[in-house]
Amino acid sequence: MSRIAYVNGRYVRHAEAAVHIEDRGYQFADGVYEVCEVVGGVMIDETRHLTRLRRSLSELQIRDPMPETALKVVLRETIRRNRVRDGIVYLQVTRGVARRDHYFPSASIPPAIVVTARSTDRAKVGAAAEAGVSVITVPENRWPRVDIKSVALLPNVLVKQQAKEAGAKEAWYVDADGFVTEGGSTNAWIVTEKGTIVTRPAESGILRGVTRTTLFDMARDLQMRIEERPFSVEEAKRAKEAFITAATAIVTPVTAIDGKPVGDGKPGPAALGLRRRFHEFAERAKP
Amino acid sequence: MSRIAYVNGRYVRHAEAAVHIEDRGYQFADGVYEVCEVVGGVMIDETRHLTRLRRSLSELQIRDPMPETALKVVLRETIRRNRVRDGIVYLQVTRGVARRDHYFPSASIPPAIVVTARSTDRAKVGAAAEAGVSVITVPENRWPRVDIKSVALLPNVLVKQQAKEAGAKEAWYVDADGFVTEGGSTNAWIVTEKGTIVTRPAESGILRGVTRTTLFDMARDLQMRIEERPFSVEEAKRAKEAFITAATAIVTPVTAIDGKPVGDGKPGPAALGLRRRFHEFAERAKP
Repeated sequence: MSRIAYVNGRYVRHAEAAVHIEDRGYQFADGVYEVCEVVGGVMIDETRHLTRLRRSLSELQIRDPMPETALKVVLRETIRRNRVRDGIVYLQVTRGVARRDHYFPSASIPPAIVVTARSTDRAKVGAAAEAGVSVITVPENRWPRVDIKSVALLPNVLVKQQAKEAGAKEAWYVDADGFVTEGGSTNAWIVTEKGTIVTRPAESGILRGVTRTTLFDMARDLQMRIEERPFSVEEAKRAKEAFITAATAIVTPVTAIDGKPVGDGKPGPAALGLRRRFHEFAERAKP
Repeated sequence: MSRIAYVNGRYVRHAEAAVHIEDRGYQFADGVYEVCEVVGGVMIDETRHLTRLRRSLSELQIRDPMPETALKVVLRETIRRNRVRDGIVYLQVTRGVARRDHYFPSASIPPAIVVTARSTDRAKVGAAAEAGVSVITVPENRWPRVDIKSVALLPNVLVKQQAKEAGAKEAWYVDADGFVTEGGSTNAWIVTEKGTIVTRPAESGILRGVTRTTLFDMARDLQMRIEERPFSVEEAKRAKEAFITAATAIVTPVTAIDGKPVGDGKPGPAALGLRRRFHEFAERAKP
């Protein structure tokens, strides 16, 4: 079966799915995206992803590419046409195609939209995640508007590659004060000796992760203690547990930071517990 | 006559020129570019643009898309096929097409390359530039690797648009110490009361502009005094002249900063002089 992508109003073969060379996403990184997990054919946290998409577009003054009801149909149809039961759906919206010029093009230029979906081997991905991952720490060097989920991801690409070359999965950015902001493509969390879950407030320095928000609700529901405050690299290295979250990572235990084991160096029970109950909660909490 | 673009080995109609939706330039801003002025059918500062392209690629560990001799042929052929006498040629190279994943793809994935060219109305553009432009100042908020000419230009897009909405042409970034770094798409210069030309060193905070480098050579050749040092917004507002440089702007006088006239508010003689002699010099100085 060949994969299908939705590109600017048409479902096309993925192998031939293309955008114009003067799409502003290509020439200026002038666009935003979302990645949504699909489990059992159903999008996890769809509403929150679409809410965040609208916010990202609004911050960049890019028009909504279509009404939300229509967008939901496209997402479902792309999942269906690719026969994705477990996997991800990816959505990218840019400021459209116009002769290259930094300034916004005429308001008559429609935004461009691409949607793709693909299956993942849930058992395999899950087993790898449950085994835990290593992270390295790197100096924060991104622009301050990381609250916008833009495709200007070159800095993230470079630190993720740096992590890979160091034998790690993720890189945690560290701000000028020594506090962890977030990972190259995930939010960062620790669990203190007393069992309190700690993550940085979303007011500055990070993207407000959808999985992060759902995890907050879930931890509250489970009456776990949560503190939304910055934590330092040193505190993370001394923590009982650490983990990362993202739509694709769900909750993934961190077993080492800069080569130093976290806790006993094994995936922690809090992280694994949250991971295993995540989908059940997300489904139940659906608006 | 329809425009022609070079895309990954083929000359295609510009209207249909496309790249795959999973080109890393589109999804990650994982690519670099150059814009080169064309005058009388000839590229200005071609060697310096190609040298900088190689450096940008090398910094990002992206392979050269083709040998330089072949690339020169493609540039010339794209100019020729578009019958560009006066205009610009644009060149973009990305890390190629691969399934979306932040990490670098396999080394077997070839980089992607796009070349376009278009004519400009040189008399009209020149007259507008010689009339001078206004700039606004904005806080520097880009990542530190602005020495790489990457397509991660979203921050630049936003400040250029901000400038336009303020009735200006360019936005000058100002660092935490109050010094001007550069414009959203140009380098920034002032001329002091004593006639010394001042621009920020390229060691940090700016892209080493090709036009900037050629202007250095030219000013030295003309025995003008040049100082390569940071200057503050306050100094710029008190300067005798100010101007911006870029391959497309050549040398363009700045007549107002944040709404305040520079000097007598008219294009300065030093800037206009450098502008008018620029091409003659660039041609003569060719390696």
